Amino acid sequence: MRVFGVDPGLTRCGVGVVDQLSGRRAALVDVGVLTSPAETSVDLRLLQIDQRLGAWMDEHVPDVVAVERVFAQNNVPTVMGTAQVAGLAMVAAARRGIPVALHTPSEVKAAVTGSGRAGKEQVQRMVAQILSLAEPPRPADAADALAIAICHLWRPGGALQGGDRHQLTAAQRAWAAAEHTARRGKR
Amino acid sequence: MRVFGVDPGLTRCGVGVVDQLSGRRAALVDVGVLTSPAETSVDLRLLQIDQRLGAWMDEHVPDVVAVERVFAQNNVPTVMGTAQVAGLAMVAAARRGIPVALHTPSEVKAAVTGSGRAGKEQVQRMVAQILSLAEPPRPADAADALAIAICHLWRPGGALQGGDRHQLTAAQRAWAAAEHTARRGKR
Repeated sequence: MRVFGVDPGLTRCGVGVVDQLSGRRAALVDVGVLTSPAETSVDLRLLQIDQRLGAWMDEHVPDVVAVERVFAQNNVPTVMGTAQVAGLAMVAAARRGIPVALHTPSEVKAAVTGSGRAGKEQVQRMVAQILSLAEPPRPADAADALAIAICHLWRPGGALQGGDRHQLTAAQRAWAAAEHTARRGKR
Repeated sequence: MRVFGVDPGLTRCGVGVVDQLSGRRAALVDVGVLTSPAETSVDLRLLQIDQRLGAWMDEHVPDVVAVERVFAQNNVPTVMGTAQVAGLAMVAAARRGIPVALHTPSEVKAAVTGSGRAGKEQVQRMVAQILSLAEPPRPADAADALAIAICHLWRPGGALQGGDRHQLTAAQRAWAAAEHTARRGKR
């Protein structure tokens, strides 16, 4: 299973692609940060991020797109842009028939470090360790996107446990079943 | 000038198209409400709204897309979906080279009724009067979308006053100038 993790943001949107390996292991496929210039209008910034999210999905063809869930309580000036980029990532995935999963920041921390209250540095060290990297990916948004992707593989009832489908909607389950059948047909 | 107004929402997204007439008059072109089923997953709901927003833009070819500005302070459960639909409307416009304008709820009320604190019913009555309709469009989301479009025409320094371009970004101004030249070439 290949997961595309998205740490949404308008100024910096972290993206990371991870492949599930046997056991509790995962391999880094690609990681990066999509940026948009603050001096440009919001519509053109969103368009730029949208086009690059789509290009990443087309290049890496993930089985799932995992996006950090944004909360309205985060009452900071950037939260609207963050929510909008999360929405774009969801639509870009849905347009391609790729199931979407949302994970909260504490779910991500818990899945990667064992504690939902772990600090950012601890999460980044664990991401590096899990992916056998010499050091955590920089900037932090890139490491966070990888953490979200790893979370999707390792969460309770997650892909590793074969319980992935039970978290999908009826439409997504139908899609997953159809895709599963199509893949078996290729063998 | 033709304005496409969007009152963003995930459950109900109001859309309304208005043509500017001479003087302080405007004509209703089309109005409606885009809905998405609450029992479907958010990604598929957003995709559905996105596709319908794009279809409305392709059908009516507006000169400007005016979207109600969403604030993080609106700490209600629906604010994230509202922000995401607003983002989709902005990207759908940007993808088509259509300039985007954002207007706050009080700007809309002030432009339509003369008071930024006007009630919903007063706004709806004025929308009906401005567009020479026998009664306000229903549901309220539809009337609100028309109010946003009218606001874009009537706001201080707005289209009616010929000051529209000064509120656009550099990229949007460049686009508007190019389009203006292309249109003059057609005559």
